[in-house]
Amino acid sequence: VDFFRKLIEETPAARDQDHVPVVIHSVPQMPSRDKAIMRGDESPLPQLLAGLRSLEQLRAEFAVIPCNTAHYWYEDMLRDGGLPIIHIVDAVCDTLATDLHGEGVIGLLSTDATLAARIYHDRAEARGYTLVANTPAERQALVNPAIDLVKCGRLEEAGRLFERAAMQLLERGARKLILGCTEIPVGLEAIRSTVMPQAIDATRSLARAAVARSRE
Amino acid sequence: VDFFRKLIEETPAARDQDHVPVVIHSVPQMPSRDKAIMRGDESPLPQLLAGLRSLEQLRAEFAVIPCNTAHYWYEDMLRDGGLPIIHIVDAVCDTLATDLHGEGVIGLLSTDATLAARIYHDRAEARGYTLVANTPAERQALVNPAIDLVKCGRLEEAGRLFERAAMQLLERGARKLILGCTEIPVGLEAIRSTVMPQAIDATRSLARAAVARSRE
Repeated sequence: VDFFRKLIEETPAARDQDHVPVVIHSVPQMPSRDKAIMRGDESPLPQLLAGLRSLEQLRAEFAVIPCNTAHYWYEDMLRDGGLPIIHIVDAVCDTLATDLHGEGVIGLLSTDATLAARIYHDRAEARGYTLVANTPAERQALVNPAIDLVKCGRLEEAGRLFERAAMQLLERGARKLILGCTEIPVGLEAIRSTVMPQAIDATRSLARAAVARSRE
Repeated sequence: VDFFRKLIEETPAARDQDHVPVVIHSVPQMPSRDKAIMRGDESPLPQLLAGLRSLEQLRAEFAVIPCNTAHYWYEDMLRDGGLPIIHIVDAVCDTLATDLHGEGVIGLLSTDATLAARIYHDRAEARGYTLVANTPAERQALVNPAIDLVKCGRLEEAGRLFERAAMQLLERGARKLILGCTEIPVGLEAIRSTVMPQAIDATRSLARAAVARSRE
């Protein structure tokens, strides 16, 4: 929902017909991406591929996946999903390239699995960015419970925890904050957090990249 | 987007997997429903049917259409679309049945075409409700321009116009207000309108009906 809203917000439109055509496959009955990576539990890849193939069947020309952690399976999805996929970290790096002037450390708020799998680190470091993330203790006390709160609709409680995690990164010198899990902007926007002006919302970056590609 | 958000808000869920599986076909490159009804312009029915068949191809078990005016083609869509469709006015009447105690006139905010085609009148009168709508002058000055403002993202301006149209119906004795065009709640919620406690949001009624049917 948050991605779809941002897709529309990022579209210059004056009437229905100006909006980009979209098909959405939102079937949350799949194994946890986080547990598959962190504990070797059942992989969500078969369901991710089934979703991509459904979109391809409806003649989608490319796909975006508004779940950062799912990008662990990016190469598999690209090979077997049947259509091109815009990588969420590439979209974020494109936003960083326009927003950030000069050197600096970038804060990364994300799940344990996104960090462990270096989903942001590998691509962002290749483009010259240095990332700083929350400590395991901060993730356990703040980020992880806040993600669960968003999943059950308790957005303001979640936002206050995400904000504390964000403040830790700012105190450690981060000049920008990547919101690298799609639950994070939902929580921070619900409390109209003061950290938002420094945030790069991966969901919005992905929406912007999708609108640009669709309009090409 | 507004419907999808309300679908999630109406779902009791504690984790990803509790949310209802959804496929969305959002392809706004179709003729105006309003102009097809009011001026005999090109019909959107072929595209509406193509959308329904796409959903059916992905094994959707039933469909909802968050556009009140599109229900003009309800019987055609039911016959040729390939899957059951919850009628938005039935969903609204179900909400009226639980919200309204005793007699009373119901205000209806909607497009010219929804009124001309008696999309609400026929079904609501069959269930014993009396409807009062805005005058042609009010629709031309308030409702119609507000709908266009929502389509280009100017939500607060739209909300103020919708609110004035709603006040007219309340002054004429309406005890409840049906928001019978999906642009209307988007505008009124953007300004946190004081009429919302008296409103029956067709989008939310449809979301609630869809969640109930999906969980069956």
